[in-house]
Amino acid sequence: MGVSFTKMHGLGNDFIILDGRTTPLSLSSATLISRLCDRRTGIGCDQLVTLSTPTRDGADVLVRFFNPDGSEAGACGNASRCVAALLGGNPTLQTQNGLLPTSQENGLVSVLMGKPHLDWQAIPLAHNCDTAHLPLHDGAACSMGNPHLTLFRSIEDAALLGPELETDPLFPERANIGFAEILSPTHIRLRVWERGAGLTLACGSGACAAVVNAARRGLVERTCRVTMECGSLTITWKDDGSVLMTGPTQTVFTGTLDESWLAQEQTATP
Amino acid sequence: MGVSFTKMHGLGNDFIILDGRTTPLSLSSATLISRLCDRRTGIGCDQLVTLSTPTRDGADVLVRFFNPDGSEAGACGNASRCVAALLGGNPTLQTQNGLLPTSQENGLVSVLMGKPHLDWQAIPLAHNCDTAHLPLHDGAACSMGNPHLTLFRSIEDAALLGPELETDPLFPERANIGFAEILSPTHIRLRVWERGAGLTLACGSGACAAVVNAARRGLVERTCRVTMECGSLTITWKDDGSVLMTGPTQTVFTGTLDESWLAQEQTATP
Repeated sequence: MGVSFTKMHGLGNDFIILDGRTTPLSLSSATLISRLCDRRTGIGCDQLVTLSTPTRDGADVLVRFFNPDGSEAGACGNASRCVAALLGGNPTLQTQNGLLPTSQENGLVSVLMGKPHLDWQAIPLAHNCDTAHLPLHDGAACSMGNPHLTLFRSIEDAALLGPELETDPLFPERANIGFAEILSPTHIRLRVWERGAGLTLACGSGACAAVVNAARRGLVERTCRVTMECGSLTITWKDDGSVLMTGPTQTVFTGTLDESWLAQEQTATP
Repeated sequence: MGVSFTKMHGLGNDFIILDGRTTPLSLSSATLISRLCDRRTGIGCDQLVTLSTPTRDGADVLVRFFNPDGSEAGACGNASRCVAALLGGNPTLQTQNGLLPTSQENGLVSVLMGKPHLDWQAIPLAHNCDTAHLPLHDGAACSMGNPHLTLFRSIEDAALLGPELETDPLFPERANIGFAEILSPTHIRLRVWERGAGLTLACGSGACAAVVNAARRGLVERTCRVTMECGSLTITWKDDGSVLMTGPTQTVFTGTLDESWLAQEQTATP
């Protein structure tokens, strides 16, 4: 009895994982998702992840990602790695962005992300540009399912420049802004200003975008370590164009929601 | 096996409760406390609360309160109410601030706080003042174990005036600043700028201070409801001078820390 969950994080990007195959919770309302994600009156997380029976051949589990406002997100690399670590083995995840193969070695978990989009319409940009050399702080842009601008400058500039660049007219759907310091041909230090979220501890897709954009410019090799606030990911831009993301995951605790908390339609109001 | 805990909140003021009588965790290091309190890589809370065997006659449990930086706090009214709700019955809590009697009725939990200090040296103020009519926005001050200034003006002013008043030279140990709207002789709306923490969802001692200070001015009766962001407390300034705080508590979930998380000396560094 009771609704059980697992709390995990990948580089400080934190997730509640609800296994619908064993737990009876129905996430029918955005309100309940918001309540679960609340860091003071709920469990608290960046994203809520649900597991259920897959509907596609070749998939081991159907994974859905929800933002704290209740909206559904396409995919999250760090959350995908956490799910793989929780399940063990090398599960293939069925997501809105397609099937994501995973693997595990030496305690690190890899997920094969899709291919980046490098053309200006797909990112999207407002007009035709050389996306490897933008007329905006000499940055480079690509899409990893969401638009990313990478600037090759100090991570200290993120808080200053992030807010205005996120809403620059060049990005009609706004953009995530990565600030990448090239430490060596195989090592980038990165801070990301995330669209709608501001500065975050870790951004998996931003790390992929930084390596793709830096490799296009010849600044790094196609396999490169990316160090963020809480740790490092290794990103490989494979010859077939897909991007492999490898890094640590951590289970923090398992829990069971209190029945009286679940019975509330919403938190107490004055 | 495993370290278990309970996550609770009182009006959005949230706590991890570790029962040392049943759980073997030794909180010997400030680092471990900080890790547990971290909202992304740990469990997350405003304060960590530990329960152990009491050492004083008349006490049912010894309760200690720790801030996220690992330092020990004297007492917290909302945390004390959560502990009482968790234990059930009407336990008397042994704290650094002495024995705190508790009681429960109709799903609400009361804790008897100490008596407020109204004299300027005890708050403390920098110099002799009429503490019911301060030369600072016509506010009033008292100590509930920590210094409180109450201003009788819009809660909307809290973010604007809180930062500068917290460090006003009148308060050599700084102060918590309450912004109290008198809605009726039995109802105050309150927002508190907390010393060292800024705007918070709920401040139990601030609610006590607001009723004490408003009652001294004849603005409210000695029993008064105080509505904050996430709910209401009822505060009674009793004839013997002590202050009774009554309100809701909520258990959110119970959990068990992952062994691999506990085994880490600190979170992964780059």
